[in-house]
Amino acid sequence: MAVGGNRLDWFPIDGIELNTLAAGIRYPNRDDLLLIRCAPETLIAGLWTRNHFPAAPVVLAKAHQAKGSAQYLLINSGNANAATGDAGLEDALHCCQAVATVEGMDVSAVLPFSTGVIGERLPVERFQASAESLVAGLGAKTWLDAASAIMTTDTRQKIACREVPLGGGLIRLTGIAKGAGMIQPNMATMLCFIGCDAKVRQETLQDMLRVAADLSLNRITVDSDTSTNDAVVLMATGRSGVDLDQDFEAQAEFQDALTDLMLELAHGLVRDGEGATKFVTVQVAGAETDAQALEIAFSVANSPLMKTALFASDANWGRLAMAMGKVATPFDPGLVDLFIGDVCLMRGGIKNPQYEEADGARAMAAEEILLHVNLNAGDCSETVWTSDLSHDYIKINAEYRT
Amino acid sequence: MAVGGNRLDWFPIDGIELNTLAAGIRYPNRDDLLLIRCAPETLIAGLWTRNHFPAAPVVLAKAHQAKGSAQYLLINSGNANAATGDAGLEDALHCCQAVATVEGMDVSAVLPFSTGVIGERLPVERFQASAESLVAGLGAKTWLDAASAIMTTDTRQKIACREVPLGGGLIRLTGIAKGAGMIQPNMATMLCFIGCDAKVRQETLQDMLRVAADLSLNRITVDSDTSTNDAVVLMATGRSGVDLDQDFEAQAEFQDALTDLMLELAHGLVRDGEGATKFVTVQVAGAETDAQALEIAFSVANSPLMKTALFASDANWGRLAMAMGKVATPFDPGLVDLFIGDVCLMRGGIKNPQYEEADGARAMAAEEILLHVNLNAGDCSETVWTSDLSHDYIKINAEYRT
Repeated sequence: MAVGGNRLDWFPIDGIELNTLAAGIRYPNRDDLLLIRCAPETLIAGLWTRNHFPAAPVVLAKAHQAKGSAQYLLINSGNANAATGDAGLEDALHCCQAVATVEGMDVSAVLPFSTGVIGERLPVERFQASAESLVAGLGAKTWLDAASAIMTTDTRQKIACREVPLGGGLIRLTGIAKGAGMIQPNMATMLCFIGCDAKVRQETLQDMLRVAADLSLNRITVDSDTSTNDAVVLMATGRSGVDLDQDFEAQAEFQDALTDLMLELAHGLVRDGEGATKFVTVQVAGAETDAQALEIAFSVANSPLMKTALFASDANWGRLAMAMGKVATPFDPGLVDLFIGDVCLMRGGIKNPQYEEADGARAMAAEEILLHVNLNAGDCSETVWTSDLSHDYIKINAEYRT
Repeated sequence: MAVGGNRLDWFPIDGIELNTLAAGIRYPNRDDLLLIRCAPETLIAGLWTRNHFPAAPVVLAKAHQAKGSAQYLLINSGNANAATGDAGLEDALHCCQAVATVEGMDVSAVLPFSTGVIGERLPVERFQASAESLVAGLGAKTWLDAASAIMTTDTRQKIACREVPLGGGLIRLTGIAKGAGMIQPNMATMLCFIGCDAKVRQETLQDMLRVAADLSLNRITVDSDTSTNDAVVLMATGRSGVDLDQDFEAQAEFQDALTDLMLELAHGLVRDGEGATKFVTVQVAGAETDAQALEIAFSVANSPLMKTALFASDANWGRLAMAMGKVATPFDPGLVDLFIGDVCLMRGGIKNPQYEEADGARAMAAEEILLHVNLNAGDCSETVWTSDLSHDYIKINAEYRT
């Protein structure tokens, strides 16, 4: 069994060095630049935004990662370098070059990542001015420092770690993520960087990352909007000596730990969702297909009327029924059961005769809420996580220039 | 050319009589029940919600309308009679029966419509107690009174009328609609009742209603949520004597007037959108297909981040690009031009070099805003209308039990 969770001494990962500094990209008096250096033998897997306006760093990082010789991750907050065209690509390349030059590497050794305002040119000269001290200080900072440096509208760091004791030794994983708005579940949903010391082939690493993302980052939504800059990266240094390709049981245990870690980060993103006052689990069971269960779960999780009812702690099961019913794939409403926590509100498509408003109000008053839907039509189920829609979501997004 | 628009003397429609009264269904001291009686030869076309939890009145109205002998529309506000199962169907039937009995008609002559709280039983006895005076007073009220009686969270009546002078005579149309939230564009999007005195076959009437709805009520969104009770009804009394099936030019003119009237009502719904402070037109041009143009237009119109930027009068074209880019169908971002009003923000996928923030701020400060996107990839275009997402949307929906 993997262990981990909330702890102050986040695992360093053997073969990965970190440094952060305040480059003055946008925010005054805070670190906004993060450099990650991986030991030479490290393999790197990645998942990238599906937005048709991918930011320049995403385009470049994807291309560099595909070459298979990447060793550095250069991440800035405050400016997304998105919708900046060829000039933005050149800017990102110059930033990578600044680090590569100090280290005497080819530019393709550096993967760039950016988050912040869309449509503004990156202040390349600040990257260039910072490159030398950024590299010189590698190893000086922790994963928690790294989690802080990549924040934008986030109110707290998202960080998680796991230890996986295996026959051949102990594998450690530590991951960080950022994101609070523009969080939507079509592919990786923000910036997320995970280091581990497993030894594993490139294809296996990529497959395991995709599987874990589908069960975690691709199952959350704050506001249904997809960022132009989303990226998830998994680095495997091999330093533990435990070779996952030689031991399928170990591989399965590692997969579980990775998924679990990414789920913790995903939940952290939802809990820190812009203006969120509730953490909401939407479970759809008894569907005919997984796709149907997922369609209904996201329809509920993204419904503005359901989300405002959650904010108001209003056990408004009529809106829950409405949000289910607006999907494209048909179902029999006469079979549907609805629960909030352990309170049954609807049974067989109509109000449960035993339902009392006081029970619904009690269930909705909690900060953690389970909405459970049973279609009673099949064996498929899906779960997604979301937050409520509050005054503060409007306040944050009416005042912040993304 | 049809004439009409804003006027105080809304056209009565020959062959249609109205009455409203305060039945005390939910709201104190206001009319909440509307009865419409059509002359015997009247034909009635209808469009119905696609929500998989259709309310009982929708199920019954659809069945009665299909029989082709409907003459009465019985509409209440305050209670949606939705998610009420077989009991709800019986309640709706009893309400229809109360009117049918007074008039000595079969119950299928009455089409029921409800809007308001979901999941509560209809107070049938109040319909029964009101039926006699409701029928006795037919003809006493105007279309404006009718528009008032069907309001819920609406802040004002939605009413429109048109006169179509044709060779064979003058056709008049008057329509009313209600709806302010749970407005989403998959089929008819609220309650909408239109009377006219054209003479026309049933199939033609239904076709003309569908065409008009697709260009009006199916092109608007307030919050992407679809009501369980949506219905649009077009009544044609034939009293003008103008036979549209004998004159295709007249039919085309009538179609234009009907579409125009329904567009006015649809725009009225958006302007009265819950918490709306802006009226926003989203135009997508240069698409390869109509479907692609529509997909992008609705993605922009429903994006919470775009809608909060609109509320903040923030010319945040990065969010506009993000909201376009998150659709499923790919396009070339390097060809995209973006405009707010006449201000070009992005040209060929990057910020327009001539763009000044002050121009964007000026364009966004208006209450009526045009967002124009050109994909420069084809000849197809679509337009949808929406409102912004404001503090008041949250306030209204966190405090109102739908």
